[in-house]
Amino acid sequence: MKITKASHSNIDQVNFDNLSFGTLFSDHMYLCQYKDGQWQEPEIKPFGPLNLTPALHTLHYGQAIFEGQKAYYMKDGSIAVFRPEMNAKRLNHSARRMMMPEFPEEWFVEAIEELVKVDQQWVSQKDGFSLYLRPFMFGSSEFVAARPSEEYIFCIITSPVGPYYAGNVKVKVEETYTRSVSGGVGSTKCAGNYGAAFYPTNEARKEGYTQIIWTDHWNHELVEESGTMNIGFVIDDTFFTPPLSDRILAGITRDSILTLLRDNNILKVEERRIKITEVIQAAEEGRLKEAFGMGTAAVVSPISSIGYRGKDYELATPTDGYAARIKKALNDIRYGEVEDPYGWMYKLNPVHSL
Amino acid sequence: MKITKASHSNIDQVNFDNLSFGTLFSDHMYLCQYKDGQWQEPEIKPFGPLNLTPALHTLHYGQAIFEGQKAYYMKDGSIAVFRPEMNAKRLNHSARRMMMPEFPEEWFVEAIEELVKVDQQWVSQKDGFSLYLRPFMFGSSEFVAARPSEEYIFCIITSPVGPYYAGNVKVKVEETYTRSVSGGVGSTKCAGNYGAAFYPTNEARKEGYTQIIWTDHWNHELVEESGTMNIGFVIDDTFFTPPLSDRILAGITRDSILTLLRDNNILKVEERRIKITEVIQAAEEGRLKEAFGMGTAAVVSPISSIGYRGKDYELATPTDGYAARIKKALNDIRYGEVEDPYGWMYKLNPVHSL
Repeated sequence: MKITKASHSNIDQVNFDNLSFGTLFSDHMYLCQYKDGQWQEPEIKPFGPLNLTPALHTLHYGQAIFEGQKAYYMKDGSIAVFRPEMNAKRLNHSARRMMMPEFPEEWFVEAIEELVKVDQQWVSQKDGFSLYLRPFMFGSSEFVAARPSEEYIFCIITSPVGPYYAGNVKVKVEETYTRSVSGGVGSTKCAGNYGAAFYPTNEARKEGYTQIIWTDHWNHELVEESGTMNIGFVIDDTFFTPPLSDRILAGITRDSILTLLRDNNILKVEERRIKITEVIQAAEEGRLKEAFGMGTAAVVSPISSIGYRGKDYELATPTDGYAARIKKALNDIRYGEVEDPYGWMYKLNPVHSL
Repeated sequence: MKITKASHSNIDQVNFDNLSFGTLFSDHMYLCQYKDGQWQEPEIKPFGPLNLTPALHTLHYGQAIFEGQKAYYMKDGSIAVFRPEMNAKRLNHSARRMMMPEFPEEWFVEAIEELVKVDQQWVSQKDGFSLYLRPFMFGSSEFVAARPSEEYIFCIITSPVGPYYAGNVKVKVEETYTRSVSGGVGSTKCAGNYGAAFYPTNEARKEGYTQIIWTDHWNHELVEESGTMNIGFVIDDTFFTPPLSDRILAGITRDSILTLLRDNNILKVEERRIKITEVIQAAEEGRLKEAFGMGTAAVVSPISSIGYRGKDYELATPTDGYAARIKKALNDIRYGEVEDPYGWMYKLNPVHSL
């Protein structure tokens, strides 16, 4: 790996009290090119523009996938990344479905390790802060024909982020638009899934909602995801979440939360198909205790209202409820406030003193 | 519009007898940027790389759409583009669904006119040749957050192409993978639709097929498209093609062919839902005369075999059949061999002598 350091850091110009998610980038980026059937020598270099042809394959045919994860400054002074091998595996799941080359998992983890080390001062020590890592891959051949790209670029950029508070999330049950389909790419983090969701989301916003609860493509009966997050419902003493399929993203936050819930006997857990009518009925009967999204950006995003066929069902979002407790439990592991029984935190070792 | 001409043309280096579709580009490109809520002054300049940030919105969230159309050298010495206003309208249909700004239709047509004029020597006079035009638009803001881009680039690049002969197209009826979904983006030319189709297409290729017949997302019973083309079947004396919906691209070639068939009483035309079992039954009974794809690249792509549940149904592809006659009828209009009763050819006027 070739490492070229920036001549000066831009960190002094950053106001850490006023960060907007994903708009400001650290000093360096990681780049690796795939050509002639193999990944070439990777490079860490100053963050900056790429010289790209207007015939760039991905601008036309959308072979583009990404990951999202975070590096944390821990209580013991170390810097760690949350379950990076899970992102490496999921990137490659996305890559296979999008006919893109897999990126070696060891390279992926090493890339993150080296890049975060170079930019370690960007991992803020402030409470609730982290460095958001954005690995992504795209087809970089120069041609416009509907066949897979022959060359690819794998890149990681990073962006400092503060505590994310989504506010009260009002969601609308979507029965017209569809996020994903059986036999499609809904389980991948391909770029197209996100662009396709902006319009339906905006339509929901016009009606006063923050996000959408996506339902299945057959009859819009089954709950799938909420916005760009996995979704779960606390009904009576059980946590319900839709099972993974080729329509649903295998969220790493989702997996971590299910593990915590199961191992600590906090709630019973059922991964099964959930009809939206079940959720609404539970709400009407006062048995729907909480509902929340699960994802990297917000960790847990409590839902305060579910809009279904013109009626809004209000939900409690107690500050000591399940969502809040789960978020704290996960964050305590991430910031090293408690033991890490699962070995989820991948510590960068050695981290040089700041 | 600002026009900066290339200091020299690369056309002398082009071997027109050995063109590979979409791999070689003419001397100039058209660029227009959207920012601060409006399209800025457009520019024609030498084809060349764009300086793009790795946080380029479209690399992460896939707001990317395109069009495909051709400029022809006509018998009377003029250069004309086929129905450019249809591409302008369809681009804006795609833009709306993908939450991207519409590009003014007059600007679109003017852009094509001026760009083709500047590169008119790239419109080959050889039989069956044309200049393929690739208008496209992508989100160009520099941030990684799942909300629409604020800035966009609209660009046109062009590529000389020769006669396109797809050969015998063996198609497989796809019952596992799905191209598009009701409430989705299947009717748009967004980049993600294409990237998502590569893997299923490759699976079909491994089984010896050239392309896929896509079927509906509910039960894989209804015929939708073939590869990246619209599809039609000649059964007895009627041409059947699936009706437009939000799952099917409104092909301009499809529309033109339906118009020709209807107005010339060549075949009865039925736009209606078609079950694949109907097609197979017609094949078994000898009533399926022909089947073909319809699209810009190949115009008409005759299907020689349909694979359905392990059995291949062979089809005639007569050189004087409907597909061949339709292709000739359309091309005769395009190259000015016959009258253009519909005003489909948009002549660039004045075209300076070459």
